[in-house]
Amino acid sequence: MNPTVAILAVGNELLRGSVVNTNAAFLGRELTGSGFEVISNGVCADTQEAIRFRLAEILRRADVILVTGGLGPTPDDVTREGIAAHFKVPLLFSKAQFNRLKKIYKRFGKRIPALVRREAHYPANARPLINRFGIALGFSIVTGNKTVIALPGVPAELQNMYFDVVLPLLRKQYPRRDRARKLVVKLTGIGEPDVMKKLGKDFFDDAFDFGIYPGSGEVAIRIMAQQKAVLLRLRKKIAARLTDYIYAWEEIPLAAVTAKILARRRQTLAVAESCTGGLLAAEITRHSGASRFFMGGTVAYHASVKKKLGVSEKTLASNGEVSRQVAAELASAVRSRMEANYGIGITGIAGPGGGTAKKPAGLVYIGLALPHGKTRTWKHVFWGEREQVRRRAVVKALEYLWRTIR
Amino acid sequence: MNPTVAILAVGNELLRGSVVNTNAAFLGRELTGSGFEVISNGVCADTQEAIRFRLAEILRRADVILVTGGLGPTPDDVTREGIAAHFKVPLLFSKAQFNRLKKIYKRFGKRIPALVRREAHYPANARPLINRFGIALGFSIVTGNKTVIALPGVPAELQNMYFDVVLPLLRKQYPRRDRARKLVVKLTGIGEPDVMKKLGKDFFDDAFDFGIYPGSGEVAIRIMAQQKAVLLRLRKKIAARLTDYIYAWEEIPLAAVTAKILARRRQTLAVAESCTGGLLAAEITRHSGASRFFMGGTVAYHASVKKKLGVSEKTLASNGEVSRQVAAELASAVRSRMEANYGIGITGIAGPGGGTAKKPAGLVYIGLALPHGKTRTWKHVFWGEREQVRRRAVVKALEYLWRTIR
Repeated sequence: MNPTVAILAVGNELLRGSVVNTNAAFLGRELTGSGFEVISNGVCADTQEAIRFRLAEILRRADVILVTGGLGPTPDDVTREGIAAHFKVPLLFSKAQFNRLKKIYKRFGKRIPALVRREAHYPANARPLINRFGIALGFSIVTGNKTVIALPGVPAELQNMYFDVVLPLLRKQYPRRDRARKLVVKLTGIGEPDVMKKLGKDFFDDAFDFGIYPGSGEVAIRIMAQQKAVLLRLRKKIAARLTDYIYAWEEIPLAAVTAKILARRRQTLAVAESCTGGLLAAEITRHSGASRFFMGGTVAYHASVKKKLGVSEKTLASNGEVSRQVAAELASAVRSRMEANYGIGITGIAGPGGGTAKKPAGLVYIGLALPHGKTRTWKHVFWGEREQVRRRAVVKALEYLWRTIR
Repeated sequence: MNPTVAILAVGNELLRGSVVNTNAAFLGRELTGSGFEVISNGVCADTQEAIRFRLAEILRRADVILVTGGLGPTPDDVTREGIAAHFKVPLLFSKAQFNRLKKIYKRFGKRIPALVRREAHYPANARPLINRFGIALGFSIVTGNKTVIALPGVPAELQNMYFDVVLPLLRKQYPRRDRARKLVVKLTGIGEPDVMKKLGKDFFDDAFDFGIYPGSGEVAIRIMAQQKAVLLRLRKKIAARLTDYIYAWEEIPLAAVTAKILARRRQTLAVAESCTGGLLAAEITRHSGASRFFMGGTVAYHASVKKKLGVSEKTLASNGEVSRQVAAELASAVRSRMEANYGIGITGIAGPGGGTAKKPAGLVYIGLALPHGKTRTWKHVFWGEREQVRRRAVVKALEYLWRTIR
């Protein structure tokens, strides 16, 4: 049994949704990877009472408690006080920390603000944890087999302190940890229910931890198991049963996989987008190295821009801007205009407005122009609101490209 | 005293940090804005035991419990079972929901997978909440003065269902709510420390709740107070002290503000992007109605595409692709090519690779071509990793456009 961890974030801004709790995800990922089991994470208001109450509750269940946030200099930062109150100890003043802070301010030619004196305090039963990346002091308390650690809420400071002081401390305190082995599979072109059907009932005969996560047009399977033999067996089954949909055995987006293939083959790509409005190009260029295969793109939003790119007036007039023919001509025009091996064209109605009975919101045509000059097209009606339709269309276009070049 | 809400997200992927819990932030923001008090939010493992345990714990404290996630069709989705177990009721099968699902699959020419049958179940003491945006059924349970609501974890489905069915239900159930008065200010072109300095010490004389949240190139201030007079006083001070940076007094992105102004003035825009790779166009077209002012864009990634758009060979040769002159020519070429009133050009080094001592990663030039034909340019060196640099460049370009047309 691995040591258990509970994460408690302190802050009204998190309860009220002014800020997204990315620290919980960071700590969850890192701790899980290092052989700790995160059993809960939660947020409480920044009052001493709320902190004391939640701390007492989770100390009963977890070996390690990580408290994040509420260590700043302003009066609404009460994590120090709340934790000290739980343990019924006073706060101590650290002269060394205060001198350190004075030096930092001096370096920037400033006098230390009175408020910052609060930053040099910590509970009497704690050991200070120096924060080399900011002014908030962290601290750790070890009582019996339990460890309570308080860290600042600023993500960059928290992340740096995690690697700098927290992980070494936890490793020393809890030397016996089994790292669970992990298997990741990324799929495209198949939905969650069909994945389960294809895996079959006997897939779940072994003992392991199974998660399946749908994205827009992508599905991730994440499996954790103690035994290597189990993972190998599962990997074989997945490879055999889902072969046509697997695009990676690691955490990597579809755009990065197609990028690798194109770069390796020394082939190039250009895209022409209407309803996706640049989202496909932005996804393709999200990772560095795109210049090795990506020529560029056109966001052909207005009909006049479609015409200028090379979509014929006749096609537009007889089929409309949202049509199979326009998708094909967008793909083919951008391919030849930008002198690429492959061209992708997307036209559709992202919604919520603009749909008709014959051409509803969500209708998207995708065209793919191939190196020898031929063009293929596909029609889809995507479900969801505007941004979902756009994201699904982007992933679908990448899927067709991937199926063509893999 | 406003009705209290506890949010409970179900899912190992959230504990382990494979997924960031953006739902908690969304619900926190919306509920707070509608006069509910979010007193806790937490995550538990996807086991029936964990759900039952946490549910019992938070039902003692909050009036409303919102459970998110774990409503999918696969065996690891056990929210239905966990909640039913807490209330000691069986699950019921909804023929109506199942027929609805069958129809959806039929519309896409598919037979309904056996697993999806699970989606048509809900606890016997619950009322189903139809999800018009996905296949997972939500449900609500009202017992005494408490309300338990289960929603799917897919953000788009959750958000749509919130406005569609959850908020109306909660409004009816809890008619007596004091909405804390809220003041929102969105700023651009100024950092957090400078905002604080310009606000000054006397700004904080009144009693109110203050939050400041930096984004990439944007800053939001959110203030809550009970008294209208206090908010009016604060609004006046902010308007006077930060006047040059305020682009909105509501939750709205900068792209939407510039869109409104352009549409009102019946003016049009075209963009040419290199390092941002389509991100600016995607941001502009994220909200419907973009066709009223947005002509389109070019993602001029490769030098040859820049040339074809109209950047002169000489400019490229003597200044390099990342230069003030290229930004200006991109802006001006795309403006005339797409017959728009304004043209934006962006060229830079998003990094992490590709930088030199003279032209480091993060260097970005922005050009803006104006209706009368003149062009303005700006140079920036943005801090951060690739996607941060790209987002900052997009917001900066929108800021210059906003400053020009407001």
